[in-house]
Amino acid sequence: MSTNRTARLAARPHGMVTRDLFTFADEAVPEPGEGEFLVKLEMYSIDPAMRGWINEGRSYVPPVGIGEVMRSIAGGIVVKSNHPGFAEGDAVTGILGVQTYAVSDGLGVSKVDLSAASMDDWLGGLGMPGLTAYFGLLEVCKPKEGDIVVVSAASGAVGSIVGQIAKLKGCRAVGIAGGPEKCSYLTDELGFDAAVDYKQDGLFKALRAACPDGIDVYFENVGGEIGDTVLAQMNPFGRIAVCGLISAYNATQAPDGPKNFRSILVNRLNVRGFIVFDFLSQYPEGIKQLGEWNKAGKLKLRQDVREGGVDAYPETLNLLFTGGNNGKLVLKA
Amino acid sequence: MSTNRTARLAARPHGMVTRDLFTFADEAVPEPGEGEFLVKLEMYSIDPAMRGWINEGRSYVPPVGIGEVMRSIAGGIVVKSNHPGFAEGDAVTGILGVQTYAVSDGLGVSKVDLSAASMDDWLGGLGMPGLTAYFGLLEVCKPKEGDIVVVSAASGAVGSIVGQIAKLKGCRAVGIAGGPEKCSYLTDELGFDAAVDYKQDGLFKALRAACPDGIDVYFENVGGEIGDTVLAQMNPFGRIAVCGLISAYNATQAPDGPKNFRSILVNRLNVRGFIVFDFLSQYPEGIKQLGEWNKAGKLKLRQDVREGGVDAYPETLNLLFTGGNNGKLVLKA
Repeated sequence: MSTNRTARLAARPHGMVTRDLFTFADEAVPEPGEGEFLVKLEMYSIDPAMRGWINEGRSYVPPVGIGEVMRSIAGGIVVKSNHPGFAEGDAVTGILGVQTYAVSDGLGVSKVDLSAASMDDWLGGLGMPGLTAYFGLLEVCKPKEGDIVVVSAASGAVGSIVGQIAKLKGCRAVGIAGGPEKCSYLTDELGFDAAVDYKQDGLFKALRAACPDGIDVYFENVGGEIGDTVLAQMNPFGRIAVCGLISAYNATQAPDGPKNFRSILVNRLNVRGFIVFDFLSQYPEGIKQLGEWNKAGKLKLRQDVREGGVDAYPETLNLLFTGGNNGKLVLKA
Repeated sequence: MSTNRTARLAARPHGMVTRDLFTFADEAVPEPGEGEFLVKLEMYSIDPAMRGWINEGRSYVPPVGIGEVMRSIAGGIVVKSNHPGFAEGDAVTGILGVQTYAVSDGLGVSKVDLSAASMDDWLGGLGMPGLTAYFGLLEVCKPKEGDIVVVSAASGAVGSIVGQIAKLKGCRAVGIAGGPEKCSYLTDELGFDAAVDYKQDGLFKALRAACPDGIDVYFENVGGEIGDTVLAQMNPFGRIAVCGLISAYNATQAPDGPKNFRSILVNRLNVRGFIVFDFLSQYPEGIKQLGEWNKAGKLKLRQDVREGGVDAYPETLNLLFTGGNNGKLVLKA
């Protein structure tokens, strides 16, 4: 066994992530204690949330501390185990850090089936985006067969899977995306029933044309005018999962709230915010189902797999903020 | 048996309700058919919703048709029955109209126990307001013992019962109301733990002082700045029942949405709109529980009982819009 290559947080960022925020080192491979196991990592999921994790201050998870190994969702193979639930050779994913070896007590770590999907897939489309889509749609929105499901940012990693799961559940899937290319991708490649280009004029009418019988379920990724337009077209007893509000992420002043908030009352809507970590205890179920669908060829995923390992972490992360990636970004160890 | 005095809708209103919108007549007392029963009415609930029911156009219930008996929630005694579920002498409430006799097939009609509460109470505080408070708080918000429950328009017919039920369920009850008199009423007479006067400056700070540990449950009656301020102080996994948004009812332009909408995502809130009719099938349960609490002296109600019968209906209804009533308005038959 060689050494453990680590990326540790050295300083907090101002603006973009730079290389000097991290220190890179070869450390001793840690030894798993009683009830622990050691994972040799193969792949890291590179996610926008990472940018938040290195900021000071309270969020839904505590920030990564200075001197700590950078937090990441990662996947690998168990190489030594003192844990009854994990055996040598098991493939696992979980919060294991930007490093080449990780010790875990199993908390938040799930086994994955490499015959159902590759490690690229498990850290890519089937990873955080897949689980977010799965729990957000099925647990938060509880779609029934025949429901009309709308998702915004529909060509993104999460949205593209939301629409595909909606179809698998017998719903009508309508995606909102920007530009004709993304819209064709939704209908021609992913099997959405309709796509609405929000960059065209007349969003309200275009959405109405795609959903003449109204909207039962909305998976909200963006907020702003798009979310407000959907709100105005919700059917009675509709359900909205609030997964993201990216239209406001770069706002310099407090954004306006939805003008059609009153639709919540009139239509007796159920609007619920969630993050995927809220469903941690149900991950095994989600992973199993996503794996089965993938194995049966029922999910189309788009990943951007980068090389370079731990040392390429800062530059790979920045691709997310410069639009340099094409599909869910993962980094090989 | 005498005649059936009726108020029938003759025309649709423009602005305030006027007497000539209705025709008043003595009609033959209707005969209950198979599976029906006849009720001699004693009391009418006079509600703001009535103003909406006589407008043209789709709402959550169809409008009252021209020539039809005016819709009302009313209470009385069964005087003849061909229905297996209702017997002569039963006290009942339900949508029975502004008339002195009503035939019903039982749909939406509930039996009430006059030893638990008077007919004034059953049509007043324990009627639509009581059921709205009961289902909105317990079914929509699902408060747990120790939860911090905030209600706006807290001294109103619904809000005052929301706070009292919250206390009965072991929660901390905080009311938002306008002016020192209403606030004292909440804490000194109804047993709220704290009251916040929204007419004073510094609503955010005053609410924080009343809820130093944040807010778990919010029963929303008003919207606007008050609702937005509460949204900013919600605890993770908090629940909001949207019962009314009265701040916007008289708005001449579309109101701003809640600027703190993002709190729904960050705090994973569950926001749900409802109207009391959604719980029609559960009314018997709510009526039973409200009656038990009332019989045990655990609820304080404030009603304004008017005389004058069917013929006094238009003027009594208008009291709601001129601020002429003091407590939940009911009209004796």
